[in-house]
Amino acid sequence: MTAEDLAQRVLSRDRRALARLLTRVENRDPEGIAALKALYPHTGRAAMVGITGLPGAGKSTLVFALASELRRRGLTVGIVAVDPSSPFTRGAILGDRVRMQELTGDPGVFIRSMATRGALGGLAVGTIDTMSALDAFGMDYVIVETVGAGQDEVDVVRAAQTVVVVEIPGTGDAIQALKAGILEIADVFVVNKADRDGADAVAANLRQLLSLAGDKPPHYRATAGDKPPRYGASRGSRLSDDGAHGEVWRPPIVKTVAVTQDGIPELADAIAAHQQYLREGGQLKDRQRERAQFQVLALTQQALSDRLHHSEALDRLVRNVCERRLDPHTASEQLARWVMGLDGPDPVSSPG
Amino acid sequence: MTAEDLAQRVLSRDRRALARLLTRVENRDPEGIAALKALYPHTGRAAMVGITGLPGAGKSTLVFALASELRRRGLTVGIVAVDPSSPFTRGAILGDRVRMQELTGDPGVFIRSMATRGALGGLAVGTIDTMSALDAFGMDYVIVETVGAGQDEVDVVRAAQTVVVVEIPGTGDAIQALKAGILEIADVFVVNKADRDGADAVAANLRQLLSLAGDKPPHYRATAGDKPPRYGASRGSRLSDDGAHGEVWRPPIVKTVAVTQDGIPELADAIAAHQQYLREGGQLKDRQRERAQFQVLALTQQALSDRLHHSEALDRLVRNVCERRLDPHTASEQLARWVMGLDGPDPVSSPG
Repeated sequence: MTAEDLAQRVLSRDRRALARLLTRVENRDPEGIAALKALYPHTGRAAMVGITGLPGAGKSTLVFALASELRRRGLTVGIVAVDPSSPFTRGAILGDRVRMQELTGDPGVFIRSMATRGALGGLAVGTIDTMSALDAFGMDYVIVETVGAGQDEVDVVRAAQTVVVVEIPGTGDAIQALKAGILEIADVFVVNKADRDGADAVAANLRQLLSLAGDKPPHYRATAGDKPPRYGASRGSRLSDDGAHGEVWRPPIVKTVAVTQDGIPELADAIAAHQQYLREGGQLKDRQRERAQFQVLALTQQALSDRLHHSEALDRLVRNVCERRLDPHTASEQLARWVMGLDGPDPVSSPG
Repeated sequence: MTAEDLAQRVLSRDRRALARLLTRVENRDPEGIAALKALYPHTGRAAMVGITGLPGAGKSTLVFALASELRRRGLTVGIVAVDPSSPFTRGAILGDRVRMQELTGDPGVFIRSMATRGALGGLAVGTIDTMSALDAFGMDYVIVETVGAGQDEVDVVRAAQTVVVVEIPGTGDAIQALKAGILEIADVFVVNKADRDGADAVAANLRQLLSLAGDKPPHYRATAGDKPPRYGASRGSRLSDDGAHGEVWRPPIVKTVAVTQDGIPELADAIAAHQQYLREGGQLKDRQRERAQFQVLALTQQALSDRLHHSEALDRLVRNVCERRLDPHTASEQLARWVMGLDGPDPVSSPG
């Protein structure tokens, strides 16, 4: 099947063609990449949602529950699981397995797990391509689930338009850890397992962190309550000092019990409100631009990385470093010059 | 101060010069890099130990305790904290602060936290350079502490010679999450907070995972007991089928209570045994080679990444992608060709 045929079948909603495309894309097969290129003009319609949080936060169950809610609203859903501990990827516990079977039997749902992690940037590249393929296939929502620690994971979730950060009661340490990279990219907070003791404390802690963050030049401001605000609720309020767009998104804090669907409609509302906010306020274009830049950079870096890994020059430079005839920084300068085509074919003819 | 002066002062164990060097290195200041180059021939003596585990595992307390134990043995210690939630980096709780003050007043200890995370590969580059500087300064041990999730963190800890993975009782989910990337790089396991219920269950779980891993082509094999083996204990045993080196390292599982120093001498023994194993079995050279290759690649990728980020070509390509005149893959191919010097100065003169 040619790349063009494959792309056409994906556009006609052929699920087997989609599965084949995703496998080829994950293998970085040239035909798969060519099909993605052909599909690019058909992307840009899906709402891209990233769901992140530490292991044990119940992200997968939350994704199942959210997908079910979206299906009830007549929307189609693609799911990309990046978390290597996700039940999508590895064995699911019984409850999740039942929920997952409900979803996998549904033609309005497509689930894909990213099994492999490549070199620097490899995870992000594969995940974004998978999200784009699901977008082109015609999914209304594309949800990516990823564990919320590590730069790679932050990069992946940043490629979504709406970022949902999941906390649970009793995770003071986790919040501390997440503060660094995750807090500033959250558009919606979820306190999951909210039937447990301490859910209110987590919500209060988050509100406090958000109000502290509000003292710095913000992207977003603190929320005043637990309820997801309807879009437009704060229009004209004292918070509408965000310059160009005249409107500020205040990340709502939604309490959920994913296993019982409690709070899930409110979460779906909050996500929909954020999507509407992005579209009407003009920020959607900003996010799409950020995403495009990140994707182009990550793809380029991966191509350069492949070239580096497969160079004979690398082997010889590393040997010289190990034998202390060359230091690592000088070696990398020589390698970079060689990759950039500034030197001849042999950067190690005159080491050090 | 010239780079040569700075390097000389570091070699003469001037702590202020070391601090200045590390700041310059973290800022990627050319003088700092030049000093590192001059110091390179003086590196390669320190035992490099990576300590990793999820937030809440007590890694920082364990690092304090281990450093104190090594000091009692007359060894000098450099500490690099990468974890953004580490008390080295952010506010310490009272107990840690007291322990930390004991260490910071000791001229045989130098503590450095990596405050910033850069772009792809930036964290690894800065951390490895910092470890090398502490090595050149003459520290017997260099310990790097990093949170155990995310490719970036795995890369950092992989640059150490002995990798210690820290678990605690009651973290089934955490082990599940760590399984993917961390299990296969562990040389020593610690079950910290071993006075809590469930410590034996965690140890048993680890032993089971290790024996499962032993069915695959292994780097290391399963351990049979909780005690750190003395080096040579398994010499000539049925497990000595590791080919060239005739000896297999079986990751020991050490139970500790870091706050009371319980088990810490055993941990120090296990690490020393692994270092001796690496030296005598010849694997130290393999690890140093891996480290050199990783470092040269990461440095080169960072240099290329800088060039990409600062290119006008990137802006124009991204704009074309956003306007759907060009797909991201073709854009990245053009950008890569431009960086590699295969095209003229303007890769977007004929988009699409």
